Amino acid sequence: MRLLKQIGDRVKPVKIGIVGLGTVGGGALNLLKANAAEISRRTGRDIIVSHVGARRDYPQYDLTGVTVSRDIFAVVNDPEVDIVVEVIGGTTTARELVLQAIANGKHVVTANKALLAQYGNEIFGAAEAKGVFVAFEAAVAGGVPIIKVLREGLAANRIDWLAGIINGTGNFILTEMREKGRDFADVLKEAQALGYAEADPTFDVEGIDAAHKLTILASLAFGIPLQFEKVYTEGITKLTREDVSYAEELGFRIKHLGIARRTADGIELRVHPTLIPEQRLIANVNGVKNAVLVQSDAVGSTLYYGAGAGAGATGSAVVADIVDIVRSLNVENINGVPHLAFQPDALADIPVLPVEAVKTAYYLRLQANDKSGVLADVTRILSENGISIEAILQKPAQEAGTVPVIILTKPVIEREMNRAIGGLEALADIVAPVVRVRLEALDA
Amino acid sequence: MRLLKQIGDRVKPVKIGIVGLGTVGGGALNLLKANAAEISRRTGRDIIVSHVGARRDYPQYDLTGVTVSRDIFAVVNDPEVDIVVEVIGGTTTARELVLQAIANGKHVVTANKALLAQYGNEIFGAAEAKGVFVAFEAAVAGGVPIIKVLREGLAANRIDWLAGIINGTGNFILTEMREKGRDFADVLKEAQALGYAEADPTFDVEGIDAAHKLTILASLAFGIPLQFEKVYTEGITKLTREDVSYAEELGFRIKHLGIARRTADGIELRVHPTLIPEQRLIANVNGVKNAVLVQSDAVGSTLYYGAGAGAGATGSAVVADIVDIVRSLNVENINGVPHLAFQPDALADIPVLPVEAVKTAYYLRLQANDKSGVLADVTRILSENGISIEAILQKPAQEAGTVPVIILTKPVIEREMNRAIGGLEALADIVAPVVRVRLEALDA
Repeated sequence: MRLLKQIGDRVKPVKIGIVGLGTVGGGALNLLKANAAEISRRTGRDIIVSHVGARRDYPQYDLTGVTVSRDIFAVVNDPEVDIVVEVIGGTTTARELVLQAIANGKHVVTANKALLAQYGNEIFGAAEAKGVFVAFEAAVAGGVPIIKVLREGLAANRIDWLAGIINGTGNFILTEMREKGRDFADVLKEAQALGYAEADPTFDVEGIDAAHKLTILASLAFGIPLQFEKVYTEGITKLTREDVSYAEELGFRIKHLGIARRTADGIELRVHPTLIPEQRLIANVNGVKNAVLVQSDAVGSTLYYGAGAGAGATGSAVVADIVDIVRSLNVENINGVPHLAFQPDALADIPVLPVEAVKTAYYLRLQANDKSGVLADVTRILSENGISIEAILQKPAQEAGTVPVIILTKPVIEREMNRAIGGLEALADIVAPVVRVRLEALDA
Repeated sequence: MRLLKQIGDRVKPVKIGIVGLGTVGGGALNLLKANAAEISRRTGRDIIVSHVGARRDYPQYDLTGVTVSRDIFAVVNDPEVDIVVEVIGGTTTARELVLQAIANGKHVVTANKALLAQYGNEIFGAAEAKGVFVAFEAAVAGGVPIIKVLREGLAANRIDWLAGIINGTGNFILTEMREKGRDFADVLKEAQALGYAEADPTFDVEGIDAAHKLTILASLAFGIPLQFEKVYTEGITKLTREDVSYAEELGFRIKHLGIARRTADGIELRVHPTLIPEQRLIANVNGVKNAVLVQSDAVGSTLYYGAGAGAGATGSAVVADIVDIVRSLNVENINGVPHLAFQPDALADIPVLPVEAVKTAYYLRLQANDKSGVLADVTRILSENGISIEAILQKPAQEAGTVPVIILTKPVIEREMNRAIGGLEALADIVAPVVRVRLEALDA
């Protein structure tokens, strides 16, 4: 099944085909060249890019000695190529291309989280049947080796939960809103100008990109199949700078977290803005940086931090995957490292919980008419729904006649909170929709 | 060379022999039992502890079905044992034991940083000749998989430097001194009572333990042989709570760091108290926790954080190593992951610099007679030695007639700082030895 079985092949360079020369592909190409000597010292083999597939010219890259094809399938069908790097993005052509590479007996390295979150079960199944690797360190948290950590480094542990800042664009926006008191829309425009956010920022700011990544992390952590469609996903577009600032007054930061948690009833999979205590290390991860906090039964909490995007960071992850594969060539690796951390026949069928069944504390912001009795009504409704109050912050009036009231609650099942918010919004003296942001202590 | 080559052996449980049942050995034993199902889902093999060597009884552990030997060499000579876990500590018997296990064709997992820092070149050479693994994730930063990160996760990078809080006892003491304004000796006593520090705390507070770990990290980062004897090592015993508090007033935290840095002239290897800007993530790693910050050319800075000691954390690392080995059994792995990250024949002969050649900024604390002209003398001497001042903090008099003067300098070669301090201490109006603590911006 494995390539390069013959002893004679062990000294031959390993040949890489890269499909797509955007940020990730270009980063990997440059890195393989710049650090060729260092990498060869680590692997005992030379690694060369022999074939590149790209639908247009990329004059910024030196492609001397590299075959360049406009037909990207020419790369996966090239008998000389040992490892295919798929970095075109998207899910339709990418899926065909990866499956074709696998069918051709080639190892694959991909950075494509959308592809894996949606078609990973099919792709890994094909790879296992064919005896090739599909490696994907660059798919989550860029250059931070979080895939390897979950699959190998923490392999002794039963993982209880993980919480990650896994979208740099969102974290940049929230950091700017807090540090400079800016509005969401204003920072988003800057992020787009800086190249941190796409022209259509939906994937980033609505949490879809984070949900793709969380799908992958949860599968590795708990040994469950990839289930993107079950992730509860909420963006950061409705957060105001006031919310960010009130949270800070109360000792919290707002982060856009992806959270996967094992409970007695099933797995929680959720991406949403979250208040976390400011003294937590992960609360202090700012700008475009990523971090993943993992709580496991033996080691306790560990945290992994670094650049989540950019040519260097993603190139580093792609090339680390290549190094892993090269180091394991000549190997008939029956019990090797499984794609999803657990052996394919040992994936568990634990249910993923609906978000209504999730229990968290809450930050609530109500805009109330500035008259007596309103607060009494509010606390009565919360109490009737079994919700205890942790803190109340009443701010001076901003608009004529109304005052913002901020409430931190103790943990409550989302279903009950929904009912309580329905009751609050029905009050005559509550004038705007109630803003809610979940709060996680992330105790560790 | 590898064990268990036969197909039939693939389904047989892998048998572990544990030598030493202290914190680490007991942690691994309990973890292999508690998480047996989860671990077997990850490896596709059952893993059982079949033999334990311990020189006394450990009634707290359930050893049903396990052979227990008072003669610890019986474990490494047991033909049934596939993997030996060496966790007795020390370097004399441990060295013999590990070499004997290797000679017997057994894989070894060890948590013994002193052994590897001092005899690692010999041990890894023997293991490579015999075709067995010697794994050592538990040797540095407990349950944080920093060995795997450096050897595999960052394999695409040229690593520029790393800086680690790699001794939990020292970090606990410094954290207590800062948070509660306590004295070193007072906190040390508490650390001993809590079991964080040994009765003889020298290894921890004088930086020897950290130097062992730094030796290992530097070898993995740069591809150089283990060179413990060349690490510059300075403890935290001379730090006062005043130093900790003055540093804080100036916007810094004092951490006991192990630093390895590649410069044009050679490698810096040093363990010493270090001021770092308080906004750095690593400055906020408190208590007994460990963290390692790695600066590499492609991914930039990444940080790895978690528990550095304790049964759960070290057990997690030992068992992760066992999982790695089990996953790679049945493998004829010529170009596998090398012990020291780089292929044995590709280690580099880069010189390790003497500490006098290292350039850092400094915190200086002088006790000066409270009269005019002293500060002028001090700044003149610094200036004559080419040292620029970043900040001066003059505190009110504490003792009769003398005042503390705190100076932050810009970066300067240690040799020049030594000369300047000699000049300062020769001044008639400087009454105590000059206290110096190095300062690293850890820009990333």
